[in-house]
Amino acid sequence: MALNKKPVTGMKDILPEEMKIREYVMGVIKDTYGKFGFTSIETPCVENLANLNCKAGGDNEKLIFKILKRGEKLNLETAQTEEDLVDGGLRYDLTVPLVRYYSNHVSELPSPFKALQMGNVWRADRPQRGRYRQFMQCDIDILGEPTNLAEIELILATTTTLGKLGFKNFQIRINDRRILKAMAAYSGFAEESYDDVFITLDKMDKIGLDGVEKELIESGYAQETVSKYIALFQGLENNSNPTAYLADKLADFLEEGVQTSFDEIMDSVKATKGDYFELIFDPTLVRGMSYYTGTIFEIAMPEFGGSCGGGGRYDKMVGKFTGNDVPACGFSIGFERIILLLMESGFKIPSEPVKTAFLVEKGVTGEVLCEVIKEAQETRHDGFQVLVARMNKNKKFQKEQLQQQGYTEFKEFYKEPLK
Amino acid sequence: MALNKKPVTGMKDILPEEMKIREYVMGVIKDTYGKFGFTSIETPCVENLANLNCKAGGDNEKLIFKILKRGEKLNLETAQTEEDLVDGGLRYDLTVPLVRYYSNHVSELPSPFKALQMGNVWRADRPQRGRYRQFMQCDIDILGEPTNLAEIELILATTTTLGKLGFKNFQIRINDRRILKAMAAYSGFAEESYDDVFITLDKMDKIGLDGVEKELIESGYAQETVSKYIALFQGLENNSNPTAYLADKLADFLEEGVQTSFDEIMDSVKATKGDYFELIFDPTLVRGMSYYTGTIFEIAMPEFGGSCGGGGRYDKMVGKFTGNDVPACGFSIGFERIILLLMESGFKIPSEPVKTAFLVEKGVTGEVLCEVIKEAQETRHDGFQVLVARMNKNKKFQKEQLQQQGYTEFKEFYKEPLK
Repeated sequence: MALNKKPVTGMKDILPEEMKIREYVMGVIKDTYGKFGFTSIETPCVENLANLNCKAGGDNEKLIFKILKRGEKLNLETAQTEEDLVDGGLRYDLTVPLVRYYSNHVSELPSPFKALQMGNVWRADRPQRGRYRQFMQCDIDILGEPTNLAEIELILATTTTLGKLGFKNFQIRINDRRILKAMAAYSGFAEESYDDVFITLDKMDKIGLDGVEKELIESGYAQETVSKYIALFQGLENNSNPTAYLADKLADFLEEGVQTSFDEIMDSVKATKGDYFELIFDPTLVRGMSYYTGTIFEIAMPEFGGSCGGGGRYDKMVGKFTGNDVPACGFSIGFERIILLLMESGFKIPSEPVKTAFLVEKGVTGEVLCEVIKEAQETRHDGFQVLVARMNKNKKFQKEQLQQQGYTEFKEFYKEPLK
Repeated sequence: MALNKKPVTGMKDILPEEMKIREYVMGVIKDTYGKFGFTSIETPCVENLANLNCKAGGDNEKLIFKILKRGEKLNLETAQTEEDLVDGGLRYDLTVPLVRYYSNHVSELPSPFKALQMGNVWRADRPQRGRYRQFMQCDIDILGEPTNLAEIELILATTTTLGKLGFKNFQIRINDRRILKAMAAYSGFAEESYDDVFITLDKMDKIGLDGVEKELIESGYAQETVSKYIALFQGLENNSNPTAYLADKLADFLEEGVQTSFDEIMDSVKATKGDYFELIFDPTLVRGMSYYTGTIFEIAMPEFGGSCGGGGRYDKMVGKFTGNDVPACGFSIGFERIILLLMESGFKIPSEPVKTAFLVEKGVTGEVLCEVIKEAQETRHDGFQVLVARMNKNKKFQKEQLQQQGYTEFKEFYKEPLK
């Protein structure tokens, strides 16, 4: 019986053409982030299930590919639940593994520690067009930096990288979980309903302010509270100094220094950013993950409906591993979306080596073949790409095929010198 | 309860120092193999279990990390055996996935197809020093090339890469499964006992020719057969033309052309190889995998006891997926061993960018901070690596730490100009 040629459900093979773009993008990312002092690290793709289920993964915790126990540890007869059968899972993001890694190696790492991770993650999502169950994530994180230098460097590193990849006219939308919470508190929402309120707020770009108001009322929140909340957002519309307006309104609810620090991030990035992207304070930006404790940000691309990446500050996650909190802030690029956008735009890699094909007649053997191989090696040594291939009967077709692969130079070798 | 800081059993976190070397080596590999016309591809880390268990994996099939079914597909109550619970596994090598990939995409790929794969594989081996359950493999393969051009290019690409990484005085040992089999047939071994005989032969470097003879006799093979076999190896000792000697002796058992083609590989590589490695015909080389059908080769490093990579021709594997055999040949570098050897030898990456640290006093905020960030961005734009960090109270210690990370230039920024 023939074996199955298809990849497993929801995962994909990467063809050479896409792979070239992926490797180019990875190269630009490593190079650019490197210039900012980020150093690459790697964690195993398999993590302890207890760590993956630590409530930092949100809904992703429902999508874990779990790994069967092996040998004596696996006992089908006594197994009562799924948990008895498994002892690990494929990571669904790079944040939980990073925090474990940092906790494990803190004494060997510089402080602050600037980490770059590019690696696959797995989520057993319902397969759909353009979304796969294995995909690459690309995260930068700064651990141990309490000041807004972390946010500034993360935003500049990310936007510089996107700029080098040719992206223009995108937006970085930025908010702060503390501002979000203060707005809810000021309006009179109870703390336990914040997450629910934010889920509704998150729909602003789809349903508008009226829609948000309607949904909050329907959810059973008091008219007075909802009105106060909506009025805050109305007050922000066309406001020339929105953070000052909020700081004034929320004085009793917002920690001191939040606005100043937030403004400083905005000002520093704006002072250096060039004109290829906008930085925008977006008080409706929520970001799903509950682990964020401060600034949050997101990349919005005009070519692409949704978010192309995002991140924020999560100062309370290292403590889950070590008992001691460490300030932490990260920014993740939506690698697969970036690749998709580049592929769709017909992106060409700026500089590729000259590609030469040596076509060698079937009869060329022995010493003559040695000479061909020798010349190929020398040409490669000079920096060229050289393919040595046997000449097909239909040489013209063979050359056309090679031209499609980017070969521009051809050299032919025959057993007998051509007459 | 605090979470578990350690990686899962048998897998490891990769620290920045090792990661730098890994990325450098991956860069050299991609660049050098690229010059030979190999193109990168990637397959999912998860494969169909039926493919992983297709008997091409040898003992690795016993070491598969299996993945639990999810949702409705998982039924603990009706599950009788392990197989009822799982629907995928982590790949244990890159060859089985490559052959599936090629079979799936053959119409979209050039012919011959030269593939480069660098990716993690997983084996649930007993954990031991220096061997991990997740490790990187680095394979090049040529599919669709029936002539020895495949072997020649694979050996030259691999040795050129090792040379660029600074390795010297290593050996490429080469043999052919057809020579191995002809030697066994000539001596009178039955075909079904070949694999068993080869397992003994494989111990030659440990137990010597006498030891091999003794073990074969003890295994119950006829004295006459064993003596004939041993005499063949004795005839090869110090023989100036071993392949001609064998071709003559094995005339009735060896396919025509095998010796000529084998000699041609040896000659072509020797004609171009430089003096940093030796190419040696080793009639005792076996290579474990049963899928090999022709030439086989292995890298032997003087600094390292065992093999540092190997490969060979496997012309019958694509047929398992498509029903039609396609000639195939591959060479795998022992990536993790290469890294280990480089780390142990105190390897330094040839050229790294100048690393500058901007130390910014805590009080620097607002516009002054903007200026610092701006200068950092400009310096990065000029090609330097710039770390922007808050100045610690113990500045001297901070600088020492940064020097250990390779920072050689320092610039300090204060709130008030220094007097």
